[in-house]
Amino acid sequence: MKLQLPPRISAAAFQRGLAAFERVVGAEWVLASDLDRDTYRDMYQPANETTHVPAAAVAPQSTEEVQALLRLANEHRIPLWPISRGKNLGYGGSAPRMSGSVILDLSRMRRILDVDVKHGYCLLEPGVGFFDLYQHLQDNRIPLWLSVPANAWGSVIGNALERGIGYTPYGENTAQLCGLEVALPSGELVRTGMGAMTNGRAGQLFRYGFGPSWDQLFVQSNFGVVTRAGMWLMPEPEATLGLGFALPEASDIIWALDILAELRLRRVIDTSVTMGNYLRTATMRGQRAEWYQGPGPIPTEIERQIMEKYGLGRWNFTINLFGYDAVNQANARIIRDAFAPHYRGEIRETHWQRGEPLAQSAANIPTVVFLQVVNWWGGRGGHMGFSPILPTDGKEAYTQFEATRQRYEEFGLDHFGGFTMGERYLTNVNQIIYNRDDADMTRRAHALFNALVDDAARAGYGEYRTHLSYMDKVAHSFDFNDHALLRLNETVKNALDPNGIVAPGKSGIWPRAYRGERA
Amino acid sequence: MKLQLPPRISAAAFQRGLAAFERVVGAEWVLASDLDRDTYRDMYQPANETTHVPAAAVAPQSTEEVQALLRLANEHRIPLWPISRGKNLGYGGSAPRMSGSVILDLSRMRRILDVDVKHGYCLLEPGVGFFDLYQHLQDNRIPLWLSVPANAWGSVIGNALERGIGYTPYGENTAQLCGLEVALPSGELVRTGMGAMTNGRAGQLFRYGFGPSWDQLFVQSNFGVVTRAGMWLMPEPEATLGLGFALPEASDIIWALDILAELRLRRVIDTSVTMGNYLRTATMRGQRAEWYQGPGPIPTEIERQIMEKYGLGRWNFTINLFGYDAVNQANARIIRDAFAPHYRGEIRETHWQRGEPLAQSAANIPTVVFLQVVNWWGGRGGHMGFSPILPTDGKEAYTQFEATRQRYEEFGLDHFGGFTMGERYLTNVNQIIYNRDDADMTRRAHALFNALVDDAARAGYGEYRTHLSYMDKVAHSFDFNDHALLRLNETVKNALDPNGIVAPGKSGIWPRAYRGERA
Repeated sequence: MKLQLPPRISAAAFQRGLAAFERVVGAEWVLASDLDRDTYRDMYQPANETTHVPAAAVAPQSTEEVQALLRLANEHRIPLWPISRGKNLGYGGSAPRMSGSVILDLSRMRRILDVDVKHGYCLLEPGVGFFDLYQHLQDNRIPLWLSVPANAWGSVIGNALERGIGYTPYGENTAQLCGLEVALPSGELVRTGMGAMTNGRAGQLFRYGFGPSWDQLFVQSNFGVVTRAGMWLMPEPEATLGLGFALPEASDIIWALDILAELRLRRVIDTSVTMGNYLRTATMRGQRAEWYQGPGPIPTEIERQIMEKYGLGRWNFTINLFGYDAVNQANARIIRDAFAPHYRGEIRETHWQRGEPLAQSAANIPTVVFLQVVNWWGGRGGHMGFSPILPTDGKEAYTQFEATRQRYEEFGLDHFGGFTMGERYLTNVNQIIYNRDDADMTRRAHALFNALVDDAARAGYGEYRTHLSYMDKVAHSFDFNDHALLRLNETVKNALDPNGIVAPGKSGIWPRAYRGERA
Repeated sequence: MKLQLPPRISAAAFQRGLAAFERVVGAEWVLASDLDRDTYRDMYQPANETTHVPAAAVAPQSTEEVQALLRLANEHRIPLWPISRGKNLGYGGSAPRMSGSVILDLSRMRRILDVDVKHGYCLLEPGVGFFDLYQHLQDNRIPLWLSVPANAWGSVIGNALERGIGYTPYGENTAQLCGLEVALPSGELVRTGMGAMTNGRAGQLFRYGFGPSWDQLFVQSNFGVVTRAGMWLMPEPEATLGLGFALPEASDIIWALDILAELRLRRVIDTSVTMGNYLRTATMRGQRAEWYQGPGPIPTEIERQIMEKYGLGRWNFTINLFGYDAVNQANARIIRDAFAPHYRGEIRETHWQRGEPLAQSAANIPTVVFLQVVNWWGGRGGHMGFSPILPTDGKEAYTQFEATRQRYEEFGLDHFGGFTMGERYLTNVNQIIYNRDDADMTRRAHALFNALVDDAARAGYGEYRTHLSYMDKVAHSFDFNDHALLRLNETVKNALDPNGIVAPGKSGIWPRAYRGERA
């Protein structure tokens, strides 16, 4: 990709900035060729689009280097876009919101600074991936378990900072953050919570500290660059127990989600149970053309054939229980009793006891199998996630599901949607899968996304996370008191980052220096 | 108390400000007599002290009135000190950090705006007390339970905003906050999280919203005035089961806390188990003089007599389980097995099933019996809480306990200390009880407090909450990178509150306008 400069920066000034960066990290870690720029773009973006194009990348190896780069970025007015490992796939990958930003690639900072078995936590640099941490725990026989997202290619901290989820009782990954080290836009280093004592003994143990608690302000944020973070890890349980369900009809989620909601609120279930539709499995096993090559989305008849072939219901989910076997058994009985009045199908029960092979357990083992989803249409595929938050109400969820499905149909795409049950909320994750070599399909995918955000805002559902291209639109949907929350965020942004050099536009938050770039 | 004006404000300017306040709330709700000032002082403060003296109080009845008062406070440069119900006893009560502040008393704002049984939450104004909410739930037979602090005189929201705790699985009250409405110092109103959508359906359901999450920034904070808040409530369980333990020796906490720590980390126990020493019970039942009138702290021999009389151990605690009876029973068995190798005493087991009188359950029913503690010495009593956060390690806790006990002895006071077990941290709550009519004892109480903060900081333990008089000292103990966290807080404070009119000095955060007032 050809160079697109940051706003109001000349080519010469930009080169002076990069030269200064080189003096911090060495010439080999300033990456500014056309190929480098391509590498850091959103890998799911159609090649002919010219948004979100980085001008270069710089890869520090230490917190001190991050601080030095921030100071130079202020001096040279070069906007930086921090990434951990850059695998925020479906939401923009490693690309920046604003073209001309320089990627601050933290993937070389991959030290595991501490793992504490007794208190159940680790302290990580942002470059540590799920595979790295998993390997470390395995190699050292440390009995702590990970909470891993469906696609585990990325950074442990990066995932938590984007509010990703896993599938254990620690599944709300952002809620496991405890104690951050952050380089502020000025380059000044802060530690949060109890870690703000130089010799603090509870930095990764107590979430709040004294006074306002900052951790969550650095999540989906451009107020600073997280250079290390504490994450809570679950102690290996004595046992796991899984109960697998398959629901035949789309409307079965009405009663099924209501049952799950009450069990979740009562903490009989303490994981983010995910109800995936049949397409989730189908996309892992083959391509669309094997099933259907006609016009429009897959017809009902073919849907039935796919479900039959893989022994799937329209909806499929597994409730996993983690803990002492006697407690798991007691909870399993309560779950069976709750489903008995409605559910006539088989409940597939799986068991694991400590000592048996981990693969037979409900432990989250990192995998990237899910990436297979992008091959569904053929061509070079892409996906985007549309993820509004709903109340845990079956009827409301079904209405939203049906409305969403109709929108997909309207735009000629296959609906791939599911629900993840939080304690009091439902995440309705919809994947928009497309072939990015097909210009028309890509256009329809974006039009669909716009329609879905508008529909959701009208219904009172906000997205918890979105692709770079929709950050302004989603931020704008938070409209109480004429967007007072956005003004608050931008007041703080301007106070902490007067030159606007950290991640301008992230989550719709624009610093004064670049406010003209808002969509 | 005679009038102490805010810094740099003339008597005439102050009166003009109050007159403006009167036009908002009516003359009867601006309280500025000597008696009014006395009423809002710290009720546990010795009468001859002249710190933390309010200049007046103003009591709005609505969010709109709060906003109008904030705008006027900016115009007239009058600092406001917001209180919910003013019952932050032991930490300063209703008094302000800075003398001359006008108390913004929100206790007239006591609407219960919403209670949602299905999703388990309520939406409250800050004046709603634990007794109010309890009564509302009882009167309307709403099967949701409260998490209530030991002294339940205060505001539900106020307690959460000061990080108070209760004794159910929802015991970390600040963690139950979800979705705030906040009047910023400018008077502008924001809503946080999903509630920042005007028609948002998940404001009290999903904690984070989109972008940085603000709720915890308004906790122990002076960044705004919380005018309403969502709080999660626990669904009434099928059953509760209690296991009562009494440990004879002080050193028994070494193994007992280690056992509790593992059970808590594994979520066999999911409440903040509180290990109170024998004095906790003794102070509820009578006065010190009945036992001992000699010099120095209570001798060991007398301690033994007190424990015998009330059938107490040196340490006493009850583990309460809430949920389905079968699950409680399974967890109780695991707990008994864990204690069996060490514990030879009786385990007092208590049971409650839904339908039986609530008083027999482990439900938290509001009470103020604990206030009796201040009568221990005779005279007009007072107490202050010293509350450092420790790792969940028995040996470390015992070392801290012994060091603290020796400090109390050194200053001639009775040690009243206990531990509350979080999932990964121990709160070491020590009450300093004194007779505020005894000038020498009061002086020793303060000297002891100073020594304890210094000791804790040296050991790496930060306080999670402290009395007005120690806010600067405690904030100062968070010293990483030359107090970078405090600088961050004050940068944001100055950006949001350029005139410094909201709660100057709260949690050690001083706005530019009053920075000369720092201790």
